[in-house]
Amino acid sequence: MIVTTQDLTVATQHRDQMVDITRDVTAILEASQVREGTVTVFVPHTTAGVTINENADPDVVHDLLLALDQVAPWHQGFYRHGEGNSAAHVKSSLVGCSQSVLVRAGRLILGQWQSLWLCEFDGPRSRRVIVRVTGE
Amino acid sequence: MIVTTQDLTVATQHRDQMVDITRDVTAILEASQVREGTVTVFVPHTTAGVTINENADPDVVHDLLLALDQVAPWHQGFYRHGEGNSAAHVKSSLVGCSQSVLVRAGRLILGQWQSLWLCEFDGPRSRRVIVRVTGE
Amino acid sequence: MIVTTQDLTVATQHRDQMVDITRDVTAILEASQVREGTVTVFVPHTTAGVTINENADPDVVHDLLLALDQVAPWHQGFYRHGEGNSAAHVKSSLVGCSQSVLVRAGRLILGQWQSLWLCEFDGPRSRRVIVRVTGE
Repeated sequence: MIVTTQDLTVATQHRDQMVDITRDVTAILEASQVREGTVTVFVPHTTAGVTINENADPDVVHDLLLALDQVAPWHQGFYRHGEGNSAAHVKSSLVGCSQSVLVRAGRLILGQWQSLWLCEFDGPRSRRVIVRVTGE
Repeated sequence: MIVTTQDLTVATQHRDQMVDITRDVTAILEASQVREGTVTVFVPHTTAGVTINENADPDVVHDLLLALDQVAPWHQGFYRHGEGNSAAHVKSSLVGCSQSVLVRAGRLILGQWQSLWLCEFDGPRSRRVIVRVTGE
Repeated sequence: MIVTTQDLTVATQHRDQMVDITRDVTAILEASQVREGTVTVFVPHTTAGVTINENADPDVVHDLLLALDQVAPWHQGFYRHGEGNSAAHVKSSLVGCSQSVLVRAGRLILGQWQSLWLCEFDGPRSRRVIVRVTGE
């Protein structure tokens, strides 16, 4: 059983942004030489997330971020949290802060249009992404 | 360590639909002979998802699909994505495209009312579900 | 490979409530003596969930629960489910009923502000949380 854990650092530029990290995660997987296993991607932040969604048309990301903004509006009368970023916490719990992707024959099992995205909900910031590869 | 990966194919009939795949996943688990481990169910699509929810009263699924439609309405003025299915992408990221279920004594650890559901958000289509069993 | 599975019981007091279970999960991890691996936390209920979010300011939890209540309102004209708790089922599928956390050097890999939370969406009730530690 091989276990490798590596960190990525991602600098975001906007309050809401999605950054495609598939290539970086793939590089860590390839360096690990795991052929059958799992890659887990974890964001150790409470106002960010990780999701899997379409990489072909950038309008999907545009629409997704605006839709999430409507689901959890930035300003709401009942918010109490002093930092003013409650919406980002809500989005983080809705999207989730980690994803696990299966590995077969040394490659991530992702659909043709799927990428792994770091989701920034309270940027711009520097974000840490923990990538663990487990397998044989 | 046993690792088995198998695909299911599910044909959906409606734009929004939930299909209970627990029986099919259980059959793959039983064939694998794994007693202690994990089953991961992954949908390689960006307009579908996988969730765990109630299997007893079909009204729960009815209400869940309508509620998700309200969370991410099919038509919104700000959508840009040319295929017109942005809402399905949003629902996919909210519900998630995979679930992991623990295995104990050769059985899925699910609560009494829990089933594994393929969630179709842009049907009707033929969907692929990847099921991996890992364990001993 | 060590595999330990243990149950926690959590009594909730309110309809919507988040209970920080990080300390209990950490105790199970420490007793397992696993140094490198994964902890999976699974709730076998369809009107509850598990999430990872901020533990420092209790206002975050306050805002999160109210925001989820707005995303899935308790009363909606189209709900059919006779038990009247459809909103709780929706929240469960949005937040998810399990989380996996990586383990390194015998400790949960969580960010500085992250805790594991049991999410009650239809309390008060007694809830079961299944905690599995896997690793070496």
